[in-house]
Amino acid sequence: MIDIRELYLKYKDIKEVKLIARVRNNRQGKVVSFLILNDGTTLNDVQVVYKTDTKGYQEAIQARVSSIVEIKGNIILTPGKQQEFEIQAEEIVLLDQAIEEYPLQKKEHSPEFLREISHLRARTKTFQAIFRIRSIAAFAIHKFFQEQNYVYVNTPIITGNDAEGAGESFIVSTRDDANYEEDFFAKKASLTVSGQLHGEAYAQAFKNIYTFGPTFRAENSNTSKHAAEFWMIEPEMAFCDLNENLKIIEDLVRYTINYIFENAKEELDFCNSNLEEGLIEKLNTVRNSKFAINTYEEVIEILKDAVKNGHSFEESNIEFGLDLGTEHERFICEVVNKCPTFVTNYPKEIKAFYMKQNSDNKTVAAADLLVPGIGELVGGSQREDDFEKIIQRCKEMGIEPEDLDWYNELRNYGYYKSAGFGLGFERLIMYVTGASNIRDVISFPRTPRNLIF
Amino acid sequence: MIDIRELYLKYKDIKEVKLIARVRNNRQGKVVSFLILNDGTTLNDVQVVYKTDTKGYQEAIQARVSSIVEIKGNIILTPGKQQEFEIQAEEIVLLDQAIEEYPLQKKEHSPEFLREISHLRARTKTFQAIFRIRSIAAFAIHKFFQEQNYVYVNTPIITGNDAEGAGESFIVSTRDDANYEEDFFAKKASLTVSGQLHGEAYAQAFKNIYTFGPTFRAENSNTSKHAAEFWMIEPEMAFCDLNENLKIIEDLVRYTINYIFENAKEELDFCNSNLEEGLIEKLNTVRNSKFAINTYEEVIEILKDAVKNGHSFEESNIEFGLDLGTEHERFICEVVNKCPTFVTNYPKEIKAFYMKQNSDNKTVAAADLLVPGIGELVGGSQREDDFEKIIQRCKEMGIEPEDLDWYNELRNYGYYKSAGFGLGFERLIMYVTGASNIRDVISFPRTPRNLIF
Repeated sequence: MIDIRELYLKYKDIKEVKLIARVRNNRQGKVVSFLILNDGTTLNDVQVVYKTDTKGYQEAIQARVSSIVEIKGNIILTPGKQQEFEIQAEEIVLLDQAIEEYPLQKKEHSPEFLREISHLRARTKTFQAIFRIRSIAAFAIHKFFQEQNYVYVNTPIITGNDAEGAGESFIVSTRDDANYEEDFFAKKASLTVSGQLHGEAYAQAFKNIYTFGPTFRAENSNTSKHAAEFWMIEPEMAFCDLNENLKIIEDLVRYTINYIFENAKEELDFCNSNLEEGLIEKLNTVRNSKFAINTYEEVIEILKDAVKNGHSFEESNIEFGLDLGTEHERFICEVVNKCPTFVTNYPKEIKAFYMKQNSDNKTVAAADLLVPGIGELVGGSQREDDFEKIIQRCKEMGIEPEDLDWYNELRNYGYYKSAGFGLGFERLIMYVTGASNIRDVISFPRTPRNLIF
Repeated sequence: MIDIRELYLKYKDIKEVKLIARVRNNRQGKVVSFLILNDGTTLNDVQVVYKTDTKGYQEAIQARVSSIVEIKGNIILTPGKQQEFEIQAEEIVLLDQAIEEYPLQKKEHSPEFLREISHLRARTKTFQAIFRIRSIAAFAIHKFFQEQNYVYVNTPIITGNDAEGAGESFIVSTRDDANYEEDFFAKKASLTVSGQLHGEAYAQAFKNIYTFGPTFRAENSNTSKHAAEFWMIEPEMAFCDLNENLKIIEDLVRYTINYIFENAKEELDFCNSNLEEGLIEKLNTVRNSKFAINTYEEVIEILKDAVKNGHSFEESNIEFGLDLGTEHERFICEVVNKCPTFVTNYPKEIKAFYMKQNSDNKTVAAADLLVPGIGELVGGSQREDDFEKIIQRCKEMGIEPEDLDWYNELRNYGYYKSAGFGLGFERLIMYVTGASNIRDVISFPRTPRNLIF
């Protein structure tokens, strides 16, 4: 047995093949008939030629789309044709016949329809490309960190911290009466919105750590960029400041893109042709140029000037303190800089309590990475290392410091510069595949009022 | 700046060093004083020698355990001494002083006490060893599958499938009145107990896939092997039968152990000395010998004989149909075979509905891998490929087939032999580190009535 990926690597050197694959198409002619097969190991299909005297012909002509067949045959090189080779069948066995009502017959389907059959859509070329790139990107991220001696930490999914302020969270319970004291954990439990706080504790132990796991938001927002369940990568580095943090973010994004070019070029080409024109060119630019850096204050000035010069935003009231919207983020990286852009030193009021206050007393050592087409891809910061200051920021932002005792107290046990970031994995996959909806880069998407499978 | 791991690789070739690290111990003498430092990048500490004329001496003598210091100094080779080199300090800066009440002073702590400070315990050598091995094992598993073109699939954590029968599940909600129709997903939602069903759908698309993510059980069992939240690896291979499945399990376990030997030998040695005597020997046996295979029926005969010969089990009523307990599992692999053992072809009544029925009509094509000290490490099976039979098994086992329509119907769309398994990641880490409690191999363990941090 050979799989089709291997066959494409070796077809020049072998003559006889035996393989099992799924029927994509079965076309009968009077003299010769054709099976188009795929086994999921590569985007490429294989064409099998069979005739009335092929053993198993009567079974073969019955084989419907999505059936599984076993082929024994010979490789015929076909230089100049669309495919470099085909298989002349000697024997065909119909291993399992698909029913006629298979929903993915050969025609175009809308993304909306395909989301309703998430258990089948990965069989289409578009989703084959997207999900193989997703898999390869995940491995690239692990490889990047492991090569640099980072420790992968599985921070908890169920958490008792209800206080991080990163967004609405789901309750986890075994009861239907909200009596949490009698519940499984004897207290209220939630699904994590971030592994960062736990990650920080581990960075104090291992210097450099990263998480890569699912996170959750119970936010009722039906946009193309939000899902209730998504995966995040959250590295944390002790003895590291904001500038070093930016360098690590840039290295990680570039390393991942390079790895995808090296290991999923066919899939990228497919995305370039079918999902985003110019995708490869866009990614090549990222591979070959430094990211731009603007302070938040510079961004505000740029946006003010743009409004003055007639550019209209939905939110045109641009003042220091504004929480940048996607329209502003995209304007900065798409129109002004035309490349991924770090925005640094945001007003402390619009950022989280744990970010290090700058000496100006109004901004924090935060940085978001904005990328064309997406907006925010990464959010990071250096963390507040002063115990008194972080307690004060908790109070100012309405968080009970007691709820995060263990976290804040890390500052009392020897704590010198810690920085880290959160990279939204689905947004990265949207960026590198050109997929325009987060529902199309996660296997079984979870969004408001939508929980099938 | 150099980190201590790098320093241990290069100390013979460099003279001057500058590093930042945490104080493990600070011992003042009349003439010379000693700082023992660690930065988390390696198990190894570094000894720094300083004197009254060292710049920063007054700060240095104040530095408490867990404080952060910066050292500038020279490498002095000390062949024959306990460590191969030490640093003669030229300058010491106390970057951040720890408070006196730091809970991890230099003395032995019980595992129970350390679990109460899960945010700090990773700073001890035991947990440094365990969690670095965990990280490296996770990467080995990804590497094993990626090298063989498997696609990593993030199956959903929140699921609407309430019917898999793999154990009690947690409810996920945004409400406290159990009105699930008005809830976030407009239906009842749970935390996944397994990614297998979704993984099977993806194996039909990509041939070979694997998951690696958190799974959950709301089971009120307080044992050393059960946690409410744990990570699983669930590969699924289309066109694969039970025998090939066993080979993949064995290859994966052996590959992971080999990778740990190559990349975390110091940590293994530490575990061998401190957690399980004979650990290295045990793992070497696994690396160098084939796993045993017994059918369930053989196991029943072996256990019956053992009882007859005077061995006593808590459950001594050994008959075909018995759901093997940990005592039986451990007896088979520890006493009888003295090596990891596959038990195959279990009675269908004690296994899941989706397992392929054997032609004897009483067993299924299942296999568990039992390992010494742990019991069940892996559970796997070939899946039922016949639509009618799987529907019938659902009904026999009290599962509404309609609740799993999408899953069962995969059998109608071309489905030929699919097999896979679930590997409990924490149990693997217990096995390879010698840790005896699952709470000590997961960063922030979640167990009944226990949700701190």
